[in-house]
Amino acid sequence: MPAGSLSFKSRESLQALFCPQSVAVIGASTAPEKLGYQIFKNILDAGFPGTVHPINPKATEILGRRCYPSIDAIPDQVDLATIIIPAPFVADTIRQCGKRGVKGAIVISGGFSETGPEGEVLQNQLVEAARESNVAVIGPNCQGVNNPHHPLCASWPLLTRRGGVAIVSQSGTVGAALMDWASQEELGVSTFVSLGNRADVDEADLIHYFAQDPHTRTIAIYMEGVKAAPKFLQAVRQCRKPLVILKAGRTPKGRKAAESHTRSLAGRDEVYEGVFRQLGIHRADDLEELYDFSKALAYLPRPKGRRLLIVTSSGGSGILATDMAENTGLDVAPLPEEMARKLRAVLPKHCIVANPLDLTGDANAEMYRQVVEAAGPHFDIVGLIFGDPIPGASAVVGTDPLQLVIYLGGAEVERHERLLFHRKGIPVFPTPERGIRALSELLR
Amino acid sequence: MPAGSLSFKSRESLQALFCPQSVAVIGASTAPEKLGYQIFKNILDAGFPGTVHPINPKATEILGRRCYPSIDAIPDQVDLATIIIPAPFVADTIRQCGKRGVKGAIVISGGFSETGPEGEVLQNQLVEAARESNVAVIGPNCQGVNNPHHPLCASWPLLTRRGGVAIVSQSGTVGAALMDWASQEELGVSTFVSLGNRADVDEADLIHYFAQDPHTRTIAIYMEGVKAAPKFLQAVRQCRKPLVILKAGRTPKGRKAAESHTRSLAGRDEVYEGVFRQLGIHRADDLEELYDFSKALAYLPRPKGRRLLIVTSSGGSGILATDMAENTGLDVAPLPEEMARKLRAVLPKHCIVANPLDLTGDANAEMYRQVVEAAGPHFDIVGLIFGDPIPGASAVVGTDPLQLVIYLGGAEVERHERLLFHRKGIPVFPTPERGIRALSELLR
Repeated sequence: MPAGSLSFKSRESLQALFCPQSVAVIGASTAPEKLGYQIFKNILDAGFPGTVHPINPKATEILGRRCYPSIDAIPDQVDLATIIIPAPFVADTIRQCGKRGVKGAIVISGGFSETGPEGEVLQNQLVEAARESNVAVIGPNCQGVNNPHHPLCASWPLLTRRGGVAIVSQSGTVGAALMDWASQEELGVSTFVSLGNRADVDEADLIHYFAQDPHTRTIAIYMEGVKAAPKFLQAVRQCRKPLVILKAGRTPKGRKAAESHTRSLAGRDEVYEGVFRQLGIHRADDLEELYDFSKALAYLPRPKGRRLLIVTSSGGSGILATDMAENTGLDVAPLPEEMARKLRAVLPKHCIVANPLDLTGDANAEMYRQVVEAAGPHFDIVGLIFGDPIPGASAVVGTDPLQLVIYLGGAEVERHERLLFHRKGIPVFPTPERGIRALSELLR
Repeated sequence: MPAGSLSFKSRESLQALFCPQSVAVIGASTAPEKLGYQIFKNILDAGFPGTVHPINPKATEILGRRCYPSIDAIPDQVDLATIIIPAPFVADTIRQCGKRGVKGAIVISGGFSETGPEGEVLQNQLVEAARESNVAVIGPNCQGVNNPHHPLCASWPLLTRRGGVAIVSQSGTVGAALMDWASQEELGVSTFVSLGNRADVDEADLIHYFAQDPHTRTIAIYMEGVKAAPKFLQAVRQCRKPLVILKAGRTPKGRKAAESHTRSLAGRDEVYEGVFRQLGIHRADDLEELYDFSKALAYLPRPKGRRLLIVTSSGGSGILATDMAENTGLDVAPLPEEMARKLRAVLPKHCIVANPLDLTGDANAEMYRQVVEAAGPHFDIVGLIFGDPIPGASAVVGTDPLQLVIYLGGAEVERHERLLFHRKGIPVFPTPERGIRALSELLR
């Protein structure tokens, strides 16, 4: 892991990036196929609460807003500049922004260090301009920032659902995919930040910032390499929220690709493995794990222990869950005789009162409720698998003991119930294996 | 693995189960919350092409169809009986069916061996009745049969999309989840069979049957244990289509749960591992792999070799794909100089012409087409990762060389394009890891 500066970006400068009162879109465009149009439109459509100014010397009006030729021409204070202009003009523009009191800039434009030596020169000029002008810069070569809590959607696609996971990504697409999944499931995100080339603001600054952000419960990070090891280590050690990291570039060829993608020093995987374990970072092995672990850690409390009761309407799903629980160190403990007796008295005769407890295909929501009630004193976690269309499932799930919800095979009823669960802040997992695997991270 | 009879069910008797000309629903109900109503309705709604008779002594008409008191009262020939009546009446009903020339029965009803010794007696009576009456029985305790190619939806939920994967499942829910995913993606299935307790027809009969079924390209099986080893081995050895199996009950507690679910002898996992490997069976480790592997094997040809070019609009996704390719034995080979030169001449300057080949975020469909054309002689497979909203992607993908499609981070454009791909019979995978992992099975 490379060394580098130890100081974090100030809270004030990052606030300007994520919660500005006014925004200028430098390079706003009248052409709908251009990012300069889409980002400007997304900021408006997401309902940004302050003023938004388009800047483009060739236009007088964009989407009904008066267009200015440059940042100098705007009469009032601007906190944030979103920049989508050719790379050679970016450094000077940042200097102009600094003079006008702009505190933060999001540089969407590519054409910097990711393209080779010429671009590297432009990126160095950008860094110099940012430092001298005291402007905090996200990017360049990035997909922007989306903070639905503000709301500020200086990014694409247009997504506005508010949630508890901050997404920090060296890959725009990986971040956008996570955000899109969370949006489809109506879980939302706290903030999405596409880091791009990390010329200025890096993952350590953001861990430091989101550790204090009231909307963020968990931080999900996609990275190809740490930018500055001492700063990263310090940020992680100070952070009291769960951190989940997907580190790409683990194989020799993957590492080489990472180095040409964002000039990251991907480093040897064993080093990352050791550091992550030592720091209590949750390491995701793939994109879906990054999503699942963050979802579990953001929306579920830590269980009091490892005793897991699996309750299911689907015998097969119960077995798949049991296998995964066994492989991840959860304790699928036998039912105490007293509890089993109590349940046999209330459940239909054909239910298999064991662990997993199989309510069979004609299970209804009330039967799940009865099992959870009986499990209370004997288990730390109840894993509820709804394996059929079971209406009303979302109405019976509570928080004591901890309840993990898996729903599959229920088609339209399942899709409807999943949204009801998510609106209540209870995460739902799509397969027994993904649910139990994510659960096991709560006990790491 | 247990022994058992070696003879397969006749093609004629299984045809009666999957492609009958006339169906009787014994236990059809007038109450919409009952399975006896839902299955009868699904058979009608899916557009069953022959005659459908409801049987219920307490009703005169169900959903506008004349209701008969018993199978004896139906004037014309019946090929298939779908049975949803209490377990104690099932054996006698099967005898009646046999007398009327019914060739197949799907027994949805539970209350047999899965409930204990009394149910075991009923199940033995059912088996005896089936043998003596020459009726082939699916179930009992199952979720039925859905053959969208006929169409016959003697199951639930109502799904009608036709595709190339046969699903054979000891768990109704696992099968329904796979079928629902395939339906949501507009890929469909060739036939879904829920095996239930496998009192009569078992997985070996179905491998034997689907090996010859013209609509089936790949067979996806969820099992907790093989019913009769010699018959299973023979069916697999004779089958020329890819078989993908998810075997649950791999851990000691999972095995115990499997044994109480469907009385399967789950057996030691090492035995299954060895047998599967020897027979060339594709072993899925979880439910999503069962889905992904089947999808890849059904809709993609076997590549000519292992040389894989990864083309992406998302640098990060390209790295994740490279890591997975390296871990699964694919060859992410360097670009021949001639090919690199040709591509540098036509692609924008900022593209990274290497392997992975990063077209960057402003990639369009035409750029992908140019890369595929240039790759022709040098690579066996091109992995196309669309990591942004890229309209028209589905129009540029062909079959030579083999093209694997991964699409993520494209939100609404992605969802639309995925359906266009699937209507063309080209499978799309949702993450780099899942796509490349599934691809690697084509070379096993």
